[in-house]
Amino acid sequence: MVIGLESCGNLTGVDTFFKAKSVAIYGASPSPNSVGQAIIQNFIKPMYEGKVYAVNPRYSSVLGIPCYPTLQDIPGPVEMVVVAVPARITPRVFEDIAAKGVGAAIVVSGGFSETGTRGTELEDEIVAIARKNGIRIIGPNCVGVIDTHSHVDTFFLPEYRCGRPKSSNVANISLVSQSGAFAAAIADWAAEMGLGISKIVSLGSKCDVDDDDLLCYLGEDSTTQVICYYTEGYDENKGRTFFDTAKRITQEKPVIVVKSGRGARAKEASMSHTGSLAGSDNVAAAAYHQAGIIRPDNFEQMFDMAKALAMQPPAKGDRVLMVTNGGGLGVMTTDAIEAMGLSQPPVSPELRERFEQRLPPYCGINNPVDVVGDAGSDRYDVVFEEAIASDEYDIFVVGMLLQTPSLGMEITNRIAYHASQSGKPFIVISMGGGFTTKAGEIMELMGIPTYATGEKGALAAKALAQYGEIKYGKEFKKTVNSGKP
Amino acid sequence: MVIGLESCGNLTGVDTFFKAKSVAIYGASPSPNSVGQAIIQNFIKPMYEGKVYAVNPRYSSVLGIPCYPTLQDIPGPVEMVVVAVPARITPRVFEDIAAKGVGAAIVVSGGFSETGTRGTELEDEIVAIARKNGIRIIGPNCVGVIDTHSHVDTFFLPEYRCGRPKSSNVANISLVSQSGAFAAAIADWAAEMGLGISKIVSLGSKCDVDDDDLLCYLGEDSTTQVICYYTEGYDENKGRTFFDTAKRITQEKPVIVVKSGRGARAKEASMSHTGSLAGSDNVAAAAYHQAGIIRPDNFEQMFDMAKALAMQPPAKGDRVLMVTNGGGLGVMTTDAIEAMGLSQPPVSPELRERFEQRLPPYCGINNPVDVVGDAGSDRYDVVFEEAIASDEYDIFVVGMLLQTPSLGMEITNRIAYHASQSGKPFIVISMGGGFTTKAGEIMELMGIPTYATGEKGALAAKALAQYGEIKYGKEFKKTVNSGKP
Repeated sequence: MVIGLESCGNLTGVDTFFKAKSVAIYGASPSPNSVGQAIIQNFIKPMYEGKVYAVNPRYSSVLGIPCYPTLQDIPGPVEMVVVAVPARITPRVFEDIAAKGVGAAIVVSGGFSETGTRGTELEDEIVAIARKNGIRIIGPNCVGVIDTHSHVDTFFLPEYRCGRPKSSNVANISLVSQSGAFAAAIADWAAEMGLGISKIVSLGSKCDVDDDDLLCYLGEDSTTQVICYYTEGYDENKGRTFFDTAKRITQEKPVIVVKSGRGARAKEASMSHTGSLAGSDNVAAAAYHQAGIIRPDNFEQMFDMAKALAMQPPAKGDRVLMVTNGGGLGVMTTDAIEAMGLSQPPVSPELRERFEQRLPPYCGINNPVDVVGDAGSDRYDVVFEEAIASDEYDIFVVGMLLQTPSLGMEITNRIAYHASQSGKPFIVISMGGGFTTKAGEIMELMGIPTYATGEKGALAAKALAQYGEIKYGKEFKKTVNSGKP
Repeated sequence: MVIGLESCGNLTGVDTFFKAKSVAIYGASPSPNSVGQAIIQNFIKPMYEGKVYAVNPRYSSVLGIPCYPTLQDIPGPVEMVVVAVPARITPRVFEDIAAKGVGAAIVVSGGFSETGTRGTELEDEIVAIARKNGIRIIGPNCVGVIDTHSHVDTFFLPEYRCGRPKSSNVANISLVSQSGAFAAAIADWAAEMGLGISKIVSLGSKCDVDDDDLLCYLGEDSTTQVICYYTEGYDENKGRTFFDTAKRITQEKPVIVVKSGRGARAKEASMSHTGSLAGSDNVAAAAYHQAGIIRPDNFEQMFDMAKALAMQPPAKGDRVLMVTNGGGLGVMTTDAIEAMGLSQPPVSPELRERFEQRLPPYCGINNPVDVVGDAGSDRYDVVFEEAIASDEYDIFVVGMLLQTPSLGMEITNRIAYHASQSGKPFIVISMGGGFTTKAGEIMELMGIPTYATGEKGALAAKALAQYGEIKYGKEFKKTVNSGKP
């Protein structure tokens, strides 16, 4: 265990939300397109190996699962309850949860503090019952949890509309989102992209389990390599704790936060959406920086960065070598690398001489090294071997244009080999259509993050340098004095 | 005809590069993976309806096509020659071209001015012969031309590696690229994305046909709705002409230029790659602005913008209404819209009243209008009808999260209907996986540009406003004093 429990948020019972071996769906229903049906459908899939119970006084069975009037009627232990009933009856449901001795409840229902005074009263009531009886709550007003290992899945969205991500053997990302719609859209998108995901949590109104609790939990979770957040703001008291926790966690694994509500108009929209005050963005920016949190502008950047950080080691310095078989891609990427505040130093005279001895005379020996359009993987090999041996560079950015048939698929193995042998981070940029996309998927199965544009590749390189600086502190070799991505 | 010939670059013969009804491949070859084989393979496909001849003294036929020792042996007219022979014999080839009376030559071979003194001499020789005999040249050192209507295709890259784009019935983009590798990668990528393309031209060393000539030509080309360029710099004398021409063309259709070499390091890389001096980026930026050219930072932005400009009318003002079924998406997009310098004004009291009469009370009536997660297309209909009638907005940005099954596919028809009826530009943002991607493809077949993130959607809206301002000048209703995207 990396981080002492005492220094963290409240971890009690949090594990149950991801590993519950028996789950009751309160408000289970056979009605097509109902929330109560959608959730029970997730749990009766064979991948979920725990026990499932339906709770609803109106039915004796739902989709073939025995259905009970109350939790207390269930003949056996229940570790987690998913609450999908109207807000007004949730206090009664929580009395039942307490009586059954269940420790974890995901409340997907809306109609609580986000709707006004009466809703806030109901929320206060269930929180009071939960506190008194040691029940942890995720929600209300959320879509809950997806765990790709245990197959706990409370997302009440049909799989044909909202694909479910899988875990990867290489590296996995976990995401905590204030917005349920974003949690769902990202789950769907990650499924389509084949991005390795461990957990997705939609926190909703955060009446109990909050960002800080999950940061502690995911910080210790061995199946999570990178922790990602989407937030629109923090509770006044809790924000501080979150940043204190982050300061420790970010020494162990990268934490990336997308915080919306930068502009004045968005702040208004956020207030009306979640009721939470977005707060001053400058204050937040300083806090993120101090805590070692990486803060991209948007989701696309978040996942471009997370993919690199999950698959590759952090960089030990900011010196980038680029090699490419397309000169234009070299120019565009060099622009982007410079804009990111990374260093792309020229090759030394010694290294140049070694390149010149082994590369055709029409190759461009600069940085980028242009092995030109008729290159096979052998020229890349030369560049990797000599540049790694020279120790002049900390990050390798590889332009791999596959439109030209002279570059055979063995290039993928060569890149993966040099990356693993050197221990230095490698990023691949491969721009194109069907063949290129498939080759990129192959690269990523080998653990090399691959991007469709020079700008994305440069951003990924920046993330590896940025996290290297966070992790290694003064040992990080910084040659450029510069800023944020 | 929109633009008088006299005010433009040299259009003589340019049409032939795209519409040649008879083509000779000089250097045609049966050798697998040779350039001479790859090119002839393109022209013997049934889609190309013109005549094809092979020229190579070593063969009497190539891939079943009759092969002649010289052009003059060909029994019939030849409108265009593709030159794929070593640079040193190109002067002889050009004498043959002149003797045959051919007016257009695409020189794909390298080994000219990009390689040094001897190459420059060879380039000067063929240019001299061409000038004297009225031959237009594209190249040398390029991949030439793809025309999706005539199926002229000189890209010597096999289709399994480099997909070929198609024209669309909705709207088409043409691209002129200094870099052949980028031209190929973009062709491949556009094919995969299903983006409508009319023409892709790789200009190479621009010994004759240049950016300006093609700007004039594409400006008058009825199958091109948006003109895109990738350039690393302009010839000292020609840059001026290009901007003069652009000033006129941009009144008729959008021109978008990605110019690399912003930073100092990239400029060095560019110099070594193309031999052209990238020049001062500030001077270029001012020239682009004055000429009404839109200048994104990179290709991704270029095509996100081009798609919107090709499919939708330019905006007549900068006031954006956003409607969404996901609050978080509303917040993120609002941030991006504000950062783009667009206006997102609150709904007027009158419009609010009309919304309140027709929408459920738990919808968020602000801007963004949040029709919330259980919305069907009827709520979107209300927002469109009332907001269009109010005339308070110039651009509609529609958040369409399809993870929730309550939003049926009829939403696509409703959006397309309101867009076409209102005459105002519509942009859709739909984030997710497989189902979402297919729905986005359907939207685009109906002419509504669809984006995977709020930031891309905001950029597209900005492009429509930016071009509206270029096109309508003082008639454009500007409510925000702001900046570039």
